[in-house]
Amino acid sequence: MLVKEMMDKDFIVVTPDEDLVEVSLLMEKKRKFTTPVVDDQKRLIGWITSLDVTRGLRENLKEVKDVMHVKDDVIHVKDNDPARLAVLEASQHRVVSIPVVDEEDVVVGVVRTFDIVKTLSSLYEIKVYKIFEAMNNELKGVTWDELMEASAIVTRRRTGKRVTAQDYEKRIRDSTFGEAIWATGGLEKFFVGLIAIGELVIARKVAQARK
Amino acid sequence: MLVKEMMDKDFIVVTPDEDLVEVSLLMEKKRKFTTPVVDDQKRLIGWITSLDVTRGLRENLKEVKDVMHVKDDVIHVKDNDPARLAVLEASQHRVVSIPVVDEEDVVVGVVRTFDIVKTLSSLYEIKVYKIFEAMNNELKGVTWDELMEASAIVTRRRTGKRVTAQDYEKRIRDSTFGEAIWATGGLEKFFVGLIAIGELVIARKVAQARK
Repeated sequence: MLVKEMMDKDFIVVTPDEDLVEVSLLMEKKRKFTTPVVDDQKRLIGWITSLDVTRGLRENLKEVKDVMHVKDDVIHVKDNDPARLAVLEASQHRVVSIPVVDEEDVVVGVVRTFDIVKTLSSLYEIKVYKIFEAMNNELKGVTWDELMEASAIVTRRRTGKRVTAQDYEKRIRDSTFGEAIWATGGLEKFFVGLIAIGELVIARKVAQARK
Repeated sequence: MLVKEMMDKDFIVVTPDEDLVEVSLLMEKKRKFTTPVVDDQKRLIGWITSLDVTRGLRENLKEVKDVMHVKDDVIHVKDNDPARLAVLEASQHRVVSIPVVDEEDVVVGVVRTFDIVKTLSSLYEIKVYKIFEAMNNELKGVTWDELMEASAIVTRRRTGKRVTAQDYEKRIRDSTFGEAIWATGGLEKFFVGLIAIGELVIARKVAQARK
């Protein structure tokens, strides 16, 4: 996934000569806490935040250039960078949005942290039974019922709780990957549970074949 | 994981009677775009953003209460809510931070989207070989070398590329879960690959035992 697939194309830009009062109206109307500053070719040259604007209004400064941060200070990414890079930059620098530029330094989008949250959490929100379906398709010759039975056995062994295959199936239909990770205590533990199920179901298949 | 484990305890609050100019100075100094408004018991009663402050300064309004949003409008979560809830709220309502209250409605923290990004991306940033180590520990009687050999075979079958066990080991030491998911085309596909490896390594173990 690339930055350009995650960025928001609905953004505002301002120029250094713009009047700060006009800019404050624009940012309020569009509900943006931050905006890139561009030159007349739309190339990124700086950045202002609504906190720069409050200072400007309070100190009676007149134009964007009186409060802007120049480009060297501004975290930014390229549209063809991996989306991961924007995620790492946002988390490391604790910014709420990152301007995106193309090869010519022209601003083409903005990556906002809540869009990153949406992208990352969509992974979390996948239903666990989708993973079991994929597992079932992969394990040729194993039926869905055999897979649920093995899952219930592994769960009983690990938790000591009486869980039937039907209970297990209901649980994975209702729960998401994110819930499962939090419930099992982490990604590795979640995978280890799945591997244990896979191992048991294969062992049972081998045992049946020998009968 | 609960909201209280993810929230930032370093936050500011303001009261309705505070002077807007003072509040703008505080928000700039602390670099906060948003702040909860509390009563004299520190209970949440509203919310202001730096964009409310720019409007207040421009329109010569005097106090927080002249620009604040009242509590019914304000997205908030409880400290004992699941962290997932804050993640869903942030992504759904596109807010940059969410106040956290305790049972008495007292503000005890703020969840910021870049902290959510950090939490979610730490899942992504786990090294793939950690998952293989967990898998190796789970599959009793299978050595690490056998696991790498099986992984290389599965990769050759699926991609047609000549990959040795050594290549494979190097790859999983360098790459993260996030990269692996993006590279394989999704969580299910990544997991199906792991199952295929587990199945092969078990099949080889069974075959050896029969010899």
